[in-house]
Amino acid sequence: MKMKNLLVPTLREVPAEAEITSHKLMLRAGYIRKLAAGIYSYLPLGLRSLKKVEQIVREEMDAAGAQELLMAALLPAEAYQASGRWEVFGPSMFKLKDRNDRDFCLGPTHEELFTQTVIDEVRSYKEYPMTLYQIQTKYRDEGRPRFGLMRGREFIMKDAYSFDLDEAGLDVSYKKMYDAYCRIFTRLGLDFTIVDADSGAMGGSGSQEFMVKSPVGEDGIAYCDACGYAANYEKAECVPQEKNCGETELQLEKVETPEVHTIEELVEFLKTEPYVFAKTIIYKADDKYIAAMVRGDREINEVKLKNLVGCTDDLELAEPFAVREITHAQVGFAGPIGLDIPVYADLEVMRMKNFIIGANETNYHYKNVNVHRDFEPTVVADIRTITDGDVCPKCGKPIKTAQGIEVGHIFKLGTKYSDALGLTYLDETGKPKVVVMGCYGIGVTRCLAAAIEQGNDENGMILPVAIAPFEVIVIPVNAKNEEQIKLAEEIYEQLKKKGIDALLDDREERAGVKFKDADLIGIPLRIVAGKKSAENIVEYKLRNDDLPLELHVGEAVEAAVKFITENR
Amino acid sequence: MKMKNLLVPTLREVPAEAEITSHKLMLRAGYIRKLAAGIYSYLPLGLRSLKKVEQIVREEMDAAGAQELLMAALLPAEAYQASGRWEVFGPSMFKLKDRNDRDFCLGPTHEELFTQTVIDEVRSYKEYPMTLYQIQTKYRDEGRPRFGLMRGREFIMKDAYSFDLDEAGLDVSYKKMYDAYCRIFTRLGLDFTIVDADSGAMGGSGSQEFMVKSPVGEDGIAYCDACGYAANYEKAECVPQEKNCGETELQLEKVETPEVHTIEELVEFLKTEPYVFAKTIIYKADDKYIAAMVRGDREINEVKLKNLVGCTDDLELAEPFAVREITHAQVGFAGPIGLDIPVYADLEVMRMKNFIIGANETNYHYKNVNVHRDFEPTVVADIRTITDGDVCPKCGKPIKTAQGIEVGHIFKLGTKYSDALGLTYLDETGKPKVVVMGCYGIGVTRCLAAAIEQGNDENGMILPVAIAPFEVIVIPVNAKNEEQIKLAEEIYEQLKKKGIDALLDDREERAGVKFKDADLIGIPLRIVAGKKSAENIVEYKLRNDDLPLELHVGEAVEAAVKFITENR
Repeated sequence: MKMKNLLVPTLREVPAEAEITSHKLMLRAGYIRKLAAGIYSYLPLGLRSLKKVEQIVREEMDAAGAQELLMAALLPAEAYQASGRWEVFGPSMFKLKDRNDRDFCLGPTHEELFTQTVIDEVRSYKEYPMTLYQIQTKYRDEGRPRFGLMRGREFIMKDAYSFDLDEAGLDVSYKKMYDAYCRIFTRLGLDFTIVDADSGAMGGSGSQEFMVKSPVGEDGIAYCDACGYAANYEKAECVPQEKNCGETELQLEKVETPEVHTIEELVEFLKTEPYVFAKTIIYKADDKYIAAMVRGDREINEVKLKNLVGCTDDLELAEPFAVREITHAQVGFAGPIGLDIPVYADLEVMRMKNFIIGANETNYHYKNVNVHRDFEPTVVADIRTITDGDVCPKCGKPIKTAQGIEVGHIFKLGTKYSDALGLTYLDETGKPKVVVMGCYGIGVTRCLAAAIEQGNDENGMILPVAIAPFEVIVIPVNAKNEEQIKLAEEIYEQLKKKGIDALLDDREERAGVKFKDADLIGIPLRIVAGKKSAENIVEYKLRNDDLPLELHVGEAVEAAVKFITENR
Repeated sequence: MKMKNLLVPTLREVPAEAEITSHKLMLRAGYIRKLAAGIYSYLPLGLRSLKKVEQIVREEMDAAGAQELLMAALLPAEAYQASGRWEVFGPSMFKLKDRNDRDFCLGPTHEELFTQTVIDEVRSYKEYPMTLYQIQTKYRDEGRPRFGLMRGREFIMKDAYSFDLDEAGLDVSYKKMYDAYCRIFTRLGLDFTIVDADSGAMGGSGSQEFMVKSPVGEDGIAYCDACGYAANYEKAECVPQEKNCGETELQLEKVETPEVHTIEELVEFLKTEPYVFAKTIIYKADDKYIAAMVRGDREINEVKLKNLVGCTDDLELAEPFAVREITHAQVGFAGPIGLDIPVYADLEVMRMKNFIIGANETNYHYKNVNVHRDFEPTVVADIRTITDGDVCPKCGKPIKTAQGIEVGHIFKLGTKYSDALGLTYLDETGKPKVVVMGCYGIGVTRCLAAAIEQGNDENGMILPVAIAPFEVIVIPVNAKNEEQIKLAEEIYEQLKKKGIDALLDDREERAGVKFKDADLIGIPLRIVAGKKSAENIVEYKLRNDDLPLELHVGEAVEAAVKFITENR
């Protein structure tokens, strides 16, 4: 392609709307433009990269024996009503009515549709195992769409669903997808970590996420370099730690703590440490209230807690009026003693001695509290979020934590949807059995964002060959020098002839502009026809390499072809 | 691909929901399934064909210098409000609100978005001409979705938009698209006719439609084999015909016609011919009423009339109460004499003598009516639909008519959208000028339906090599005969190695089932390993050919590769 004919509206300024690197660079490099919050158009460069990501995903899914099909995005409500998700998705599902007042939604994920397709179309147990997938535009009305393609409201996803005769079959199908995902993310050039993920809420029996570590990632992950353990925060098991608070149980004491509401204020006021406290938080779980307790220096993991409670909606902090009614005190003085709602205590709370809690009385706390003696939790479990001081639950060595971008998720669904919708088969003996399912997602648009988050410098994107919009850019330094133009065109034509996806910068721009744009848009290899064009010598430079080489034209083309084909 | 691993749920029965051949066959062949009225999922075979159609469109658009990008489908209302189309689309636009109560729609067509993109991103007149396109899912809440993919509510379209400095530039861009469309539809194997189309309402300066003639087509086209003239019914110019009704004007006479409401009843009652009448129809045009007159054996063309009237909404027949108020008579007795609304008369009415009209009085008509003497039309123009007895407006030879499926439409938009949204450029002298636009659509999903409408027999689809889901199917006759299975697999592998998109029917089905399915799903070439497998002799049969050949394996593979590569 020649750049004169290409819409590449690069920007020198960093757009105000963007907070993270990939978003900034995709706007600056003319990859995407915002149409509404979380909704983007893909300009030619962005679309080219996206199509390459899609194609890699497609090839590996096909190679793993999955079959591609394509569902609609505009879906009748009935499809989600039988599974109950018409309600469960809540405000995050885009809903609408057609001209006949029938309810529709924009599909957020398609478990129901694929399950129904298999119910309708598969006639014999001999057709299983079967894995179906689609690469499709999905819709979620996120409360906080942000970070460009990282968390959009209209985005492209590959979703796959496996159908097996039994759990053993699911294990095989799951492993195939696991392997395919490893190949996909490797080909995409992503440095990824596979973590165990929470599957409780969905009723499944196993789940893993493919994460790209990044400070802008929205998911927390814990990992152990010693034994290889890795899990997301929701799944990572916390080993209870003990802090020395004395050997003997001291006498319970009510202390006045006027106008003191937060742990920080309490620590200051009582001149002690956060780990001497146990904080009690009141949550609304569907239509009832519960209390949760963790040590003062810990965070409650709301997903762990939600799974434990078994509620449908996400937990919400109780409204202030409810806290006042439940604790008979202002917000900030909740504690377990005398509460008549269920109390979920973290494992670690059971190891604490002589600690401080709210007294359920405005301006008062209790000191020297001890479990069993002073109160009894309703449920004791691991409900906190793992943190840097923790140890690996597997080998006991210090654990590390990081933020991750979730680019893929594989999930053993089990029979949740086949039970709900009635997907059964008759086995060889004519006995009806329930089909066992798995589901497997890849955020196609998010993969591109993650790749840019991972590969960039102050000059722009550094994209892997496999997903860069073009593989090589050829630049004549002086747009008015016929010799340079002719040589650049020759190189361009030769590369094209060898099947290289080349871009010729034939614009009448200054050399500086052309070099800056080439770096910004992340083309992996640059060949420049400059002053030595008369001698057929060109500059050959990899995007992620500082040193340009001077090569004879023939050598440069040969080296380019070799480099590109080896790195595709 | 091996058929055991492929979801091809063929049906022997014709599904009740389908009325036309392509719809029936796509359901029967397991290409598509209905999710809601006008909304379908594409099963693996359907998706494969669709992707091939898309790819041909993409290649030819790219070759014509157009740039691909991809807009969102979920679009903020503002995008359509500036052009006024938020209202114009009426109930055919799917509208919804997001969680913050902002108005959105599902994009029915993207003129506004592309125009805005060019306003935002193009910085110099030197970047023109520019043609941008996308292949994207579109949404229209059709009043009568029907005929499967022929008229859906969610469908795939290629829409392109050209941007030029002036009308002369538009002519060039338009011609490029015209040529690209010819190549596309030729490669798709469609037998198409290019017809002049109406462009009045859109304010453009020229428009053509690419039609596939078919009895199930929803558009009427007129064409002349003698001179090549072709136009759709809205555009086709009607040459006024004369029918002999006497030389001298007879005296106007009011006749009683009790309980006679239709032309047929009148003809019967007055013992005369339809062409002796002029019918007068009262329409509602936006918020006013008009009358339209054509000869009794003619049909009013409402698009021609609408363009003439210049109203925004489509014409509607006036409500009975309005007809009674306007004509002071029951419905069925309207006529031009004494009407105080504008009367639009067809050219042909001016050539009539001594004809019959309604008397604007219940149960009465006038006989021996003559224009000028008895009434004066407000506007005289061509407002009727051309028909088989008509002559070619270009050469005067007899015209032919047919029904057509519109698969493509190219349109000189002019400055409609650039004026409305403010797309201008500064020319070399710094003077602001308005960009001149064209738009160009192809119904991707409809192309597949049209190809099937065109290519089928009693056994199923007959698809061109270019868009069949697979190019060759290899079938071992006896699923238990190892020799046949081995030979079929060898052929399959050899074809794959030569880059042929081959399908191996490895199912444990009877031969009859396999042959029936192969015919039904429309694979262009079938190679069968049967009883002569031991001698390495196979059966080689084209789908649209009755005679199978017996060939040696090597010859068969060679012939297949030759046939496929020549017909791709």
